[in-house]
Amino acid sequence: MSKKVLIVGGVAGGASTAARLRRLDENLEIIMFERGEYISFANCGLPYYIGETIEERDALLLQTPEAMKARFNIDVRVNNEVLKIERDKKQIQVKNLLTEEVYNESYDYLVLSPGSTPLKPPIPGIDSPNIFSLWNIPDTDKIKDYVDNQRPKRAVVIGGGFIGIEMAENLYDRGLEVTIVEMADQVMAPLDFEMAQIVHQHIKSKDVKLHLKDGVKEFQYNNGITTIVLQSGRTIDTDMVILSIGIKPQSKLAIDAGLDVNQRGGIIVDDNLRTSDDSIYALGDAIEVVDFMNGNKTMIPLAGPANKQGRITANNIAGREEKYKGTQGTSIAKVFDLTVASTGHNEKILKRNGLEYGKDYKTSIIHSKSHAGYYPGAFTMSIKLIFDLKGKILGAQIVGYEGTDKRIDVIATAIRFNGTVYDLKELELAYAPPYSSAKDPTNMAGFTAENILKGDLDVIQWNEIDNIDKNSSMIIDVRDEVERELGYIQDSINIPVDQLRDRLSELDKEKEIIIYCAVGLRGYIAARILKQNGFTKVRNLSGGYTTYSCVFC
Amino acid sequence: MSKKVLIVGGVAGGASTAARLRRLDENLEIIMFERGEYISFANCGLPYYIGETIEERDALLLQTPEAMKARFNIDVRVNNEVLKIERDKKQIQVKNLLTEEVYNESYDYLVLSPGSTPLKPPIPGIDSPNIFSLWNIPDTDKIKDYVDNQRPKRAVVIGGGFIGIEMAENLYDRGLEVTIVEMADQVMAPLDFEMAQIVHQHIKSKDVKLHLKDGVKEFQYNNGITTIVLQSGRTIDTDMVILSIGIKPQSKLAIDAGLDVNQRGGIIVDDNLRTSDDSIYALGDAIEVVDFMNGNKTMIPLAGPANKQGRITANNIAGREEKYKGTQGTSIAKVFDLTVASTGHNEKILKRNGLEYGKDYKTSIIHSKSHAGYYPGAFTMSIKLIFDLKGKILGAQIVGYEGTDKRIDVIATAIRFNGTVYDLKELELAYAPPYSSAKDPTNMAGFTAENILKGDLDVIQWNEIDNIDKNSSMIIDVRDEVERELGYIQDSINIPVDQLRDRLSELDKEKEIIIYCAVGLRGYIAARILKQNGFTKVRNLSGGYTTYSCVFC
Ligand SMILES: Cc1cc2nc3c(=O)[nH]c(=O)nc-3n(C[C@H](O)[C@H](O)[C@H](O)COP(=O)(O)OP(=O)(O)OC[C@H]3O[C@@H](n4cnc5c(N)ncnc54)[C@H](O)[C@@H]3O)c2cc1C
Ligand SMILES: Cc1cc2nc3c(=O)[nH]c(=O)nc-3n(C[C@H](O)[C@H](O)[C@H](O)COP(=O)(O)OP(=O)(O)OC[C@H]3O[C@@H](n4cnc5c(N)ncnc54)[C@H](O)[C@@H]3O)c2cc1C
Ligand SMILES: CC(C)(COP(=O)(O)OP(=O)(O)OC[C@H]1O[C@@H](n2cnc3c(N)ncnc32)[C@H](O)[C@@H]1OP(=O)(O)O)[C@@H](O)C(=O)NCCC(=O)NCCS
Ligand SMILES: CC(C)(COP(=O)(O)OP(=O)(O)OC[C@H]1O[C@@H](n2cnc3c(N)ncnc32)[C@H](O)[C@@H]1OP(=O)(O)O)[C@@H](O)C(=O)NCCC(=O)NCCS
Repeated sequence: MSKKVLIVGGVAGGASTAARLRRLDENLEIIMFERGEYISFANCGLPYYIGETIEERDALLLQTPEAMKARFNIDVRVNNEVLKIERDKKQIQVKNLLTEEVYNESYDYLVLSPGSTPLKPPIPGIDSPNIFSLWNIPDTDKIKDYVDNQRPKRAVVIGGGFIGIEMAENLYDRGLEVTIVEMADQVMAPLDFEMAQIVHQHIKSKDVKLHLKDGVKEFQYNNGITTIVLQSGRTIDTDMVILSIGIKPQSKLAIDAGLDVNQRGGIIVDDNLRTSDDSIYALGDAIEVVDFMNGNKTMIPLAGPANKQGRITANNIAGREEKYKGTQGTSIAKVFDLTVASTGHNEKILKRNGLEYGKDYKTSIIHSKSHAGYYPGAFTMSIKLIFDLKGKILGAQIVGYEGTDKRIDVIATAIRFNGTVYDLKELELAYAPPYSSAKDPTNMAGFTAENILKGDLDVIQWNEIDNIDKNSSMIIDVRDEVERELGYIQDSINIPVDQLRDRLSELDKEKEIIIYCAVGLRGYIAARILKQNGFTKVRNLSGGYTTYSCVFC
Repeated sequence: MSKKVLIVGGVAGGASTAARLRRLDENLEIIMFERGEYISFANCGLPYYIGETIEERDALLLQTPEAMKARFNIDVRVNNEVLKIERDKKQIQVKNLLTEEVYNESYDYLVLSPGSTPLKPPIPGIDSPNIFSLWNIPDTDKIKDYVDNQRPKRAVVIGGGFIGIEMAENLYDRGLEVTIVEMADQVMAPLDFEMAQIVHQHIKSKDVKLHLKDGVKEFQYNNGITTIVLQSGRTIDTDMVILSIGIKPQSKLAIDAGLDVNQRGGIIVDDNLRTSDDSIYALGDAIEVVDFMNGNKTMIPLAGPANKQGRITANNIAGREEKYKGTQGTSIAKVFDLTVASTGHNEKILKRNGLEYGKDYKTSIIHSKSHAGYYPGAFTMSIKLIFDLKGKILGAQIVGYEGTDKRIDVIATAIRFNGTVYDLKELELAYAPPYSSAKDPTNMAGFTAENILKGDLDVIQWNEIDNIDKNSSMIIDVRDEVERELGYIQDSINIPVDQLRDRLSELDKEKEIIIYCAVGLRGYIAARILKQNGFTKVRNLSGGYTTYSCVFC
């Protein structure tokens, strides 16, 4: 007799599992349960439908129950909530939300892909009618309807993660005055502080207000207007609020059934995505995964991993053993005109894990053109690369425009192969002027990192500059004189790099020499000149004045 | 005493070597000789300056002798041709082309980066005044001047390589009626035949004429007009001709000096880029390199390798041993709105090397959206992946629009790590709707290849369809009925995939079933249904009707 597979959750992880399972096995009985009205919807597209970049609501629905039946012979039950897993009987209890009927369904294999759900902390006033979260199609309909019909003028987004920022952009596109409130000192947590500053500047350049290091104390709703009282005491009046402060796994089913979960409620699975019950698999946002970077356990709720885990789950159920090798956390977001991307670990994570800059890892920041500078339309992207002392790439962050996505994908690929910065410098990438430079930015990041590791270049970070001892050091600005008009570091002396060889006598060999230029390249050349002329302590400002001024100006 | 390094050639390889060498060693005496008037020019940008996409001529000059002196303390001698290498005396003979003075210069190390030069076969009439080659700034000035001032209406480009095609595009941009003549049956040699068809269609859609499988017999110049007599007998009248039929290494210096060269005149170097003379290094277009894909010797004249070899040459001279690990031939070109890219080997190369389809390697062709289909602006790209039977990636070709460069770079990176198609499917790339899909096209290429390798999917190629035995096989078109209106394969029967399970009785189990859909995805699903319903011989058309019709329609 053919086996019976039940799937809980009909979107990224669930639907992918179902489709692959059918391709592998025509004879399985497959039933997919979805509490909501829709399956296979484009979660990630929701903000853009609200912003009307995606014009047709139908475009969000990648599959329907009918189509899924016709193509894959899958019994899809929308509006059916799985209430309980009765592991001893290998059955689940399901409620048809339309008829209120409750029934049981038996299984040989059960797949849990219930996803996560937005956090909604018990802040006073949080249930006001103009406060929204965005997670699914009904949420989307509610928000879009409100914008279309109530014509709010102002919106406040609470939370500067990628969904919050996407909502800020899309509401801005709809003509609203938008404010973002974020508890941390930066938006976009995957970025380190100095990289996030580029994003802050860009957001502000759009006249979107940004309140950092401030949380919500209370919402006061009055006649269509919500007054947000912040912890700082500041108040903001707004016509609508988007709450986007984090998510938690929807693992109640699993917990109630006694499956192993971690402290955050993440369902624990083995390498084959099997839970502590051999007949039950779990995947997607709801599970704990292996951090590809260091083998630790973590949770990384993203669509790419969920989709791929679906395929692996199906393979395992169909008897084709396959391991999920972990998630490295590659992510990307469009932030107005900017692209913000990262892969692997950032410095914040490394420090949290007890690693120390200089001892356990080093970093380099470069600013490179997206394609050959002489071909029109090239934009600068900022790349922060983090690597251990053997050169192994630990993570990368890129903020830029065109071509940012390409470079993060190249580095993400290198990471997947446990690549080093030495590998980056050798990558043979496609070059013609409209696409890149003969030395691609990822090559350049590799070169720079190599120079740092080999001791050819000592760097100083943006946050160390203001702490240097002014008596025992000199700061040399090697840019051209005109460039100083746009700003410079206090107490720096200007000696353009091209004059340096002739003006060595102006420098004090006893002192540490701190060099900077616009991005780090001329500073590096200057540092090389000094180092070989008897200056023993020379450091170049990583990322140059571009990075420094992002933080301080 | 400090060592003296002489460099022959002041552009991609030469100037890169010089700059890196100075960064490594302030004390070296470095002299760079360039026969032409300019150094460090953007060879790759030349066509775009003629087409006026690049507006300023100065933008093409990345360095000048003066700036190179100021920044790098390098003695740059333009208009100085190196005539001879006297290895026994470790000196070269140089001619100052302005003063005609001939002088000697001694060296500790000599670096040869003389590049290549366009082929100019002895075709009658080839020296006519309106026949041009494009290789350097003077060539560019000549062509641009001719277009600006003679206002030609028609141009013929001889040779459909990337430079020829770039010239065709740029002359088209200047308003000329353009014809391309190519001896082979396709343009863009890095592509296999069926992939090149997409390019042919695109070129023709721009009203650029394309004469394939035809060569030039004779040029007849008469009063500003050249009549091109082709081998087929066809004649074309034109106001100007761009000759772009290939290049050869400028290795005369090396040959005369008795350095080892290969049959094509490529200078032979070891892993450290040292020639058969210990004191002489060579790099760039002029050398023979190791083919990264199979370790064979080959010649791959591209700017990325030349620039990187420059850095490695400098490292070796400065006593930091570094190996050049070979060239994999990653290349890309903009062809009007299309992007055409490839990395590694194509099928033509494999066959030339004696490898056999099915026995030594397999291929997959997919057509994927550049980013999530529901987010506006997604374009289809066609990916051909070639892999050996263990899954090792042997090469990839991609033709598409946005995001083509990204995917070739990701695959090129995987190749650099000796990656397999199984690695491709696991790559964790950056996903948000404007950039990609939860399963990136490169993942999808990996999945499809895996299915082929594991025997879940047997494919038939576009060129096998017309040879199948009609008596022992059936061709099933699993697209929707309306899709057939745009064309279909002769003798195919239409059974939309969603009806297939109910219409199995219409098929003959004794026959081989050939399935096709638009791109291959529905065909794959249909093939899975049949295979599991007792049909033993089922093949799906690789790339679907999209690939097939490109070739045949
Ligand atoms: C607005 C938004 C934008 C996003 N953008 C991106 C992005 O750009 N890139 C990216 O990588 N990720 C993005 N994500 C995250 C991505 O969508 C998720 O990581 C992914 O959908 C997780 O897949 P899943 O299968 O675990 O959960 P989901 O896709 O959320 O599916 C879970 C489904 O299970 C159903 N369910 C739960 N419990 C039950 C039950 N007891 N009975 C029946 N059904 C149940 C739920 O109703 C839900 O529909 C975004 C998410 C949102 C909300
Ligand atoms: C129009 C055009 C477009 C291109 N587009 C691309 C592209 O998009 N992508 C890509 O990867 N590559 C492209 N290339 C190829 C790329 O430019 C070359 O591969 C690269 O420049 C090779 O570097 P090289 O140092 O070997 O030679 P070159 O850069 O050509 O430099 C060699 C120099 O040596 C000088 N020289 C030779 N002999 C002597 C002598 N005896 N004495 C003194 N000087 C001498 C020559 O005058 C020449 O200036 C393009 C080339 C051209 C012409
Ligand atoms: C719509 C949905 C059910 C599709 O699942 P799917 O069928 O596994 O995925 P796709 O349609 O992308 O098809 C992938 C399959 O086609 C195959 N394929 C793709 N192109 C092919 C081609 N040209 N020839 C042959 N096979 C091809 C792949 O190999 C893969 O099959 P496999 O997994 O058996 O190897 C699922 O992705 C979904 O529900 N998505 C919406 C929810 C979501 O992901 N949200 C988060 C992101 S917004
Ligand atoms: C212009 C030219 C001389 C420059 O050579 P170059 O100085 O080696 O190259 P770049 O200017 O790109 O600088 C690269 C160096 O800057 C360093 N660098 C880049 N960004 C940096 C940063 N932010 N901080 C510190 N160092 C940085 C790199 O590490 C590298 O140094 P290294 O090789 O010592 O490690 C040479 O590329 C040339 O002549 N090009 C034109 C010809 C040509 O290439 N044609 C074909 C393509 S059109």
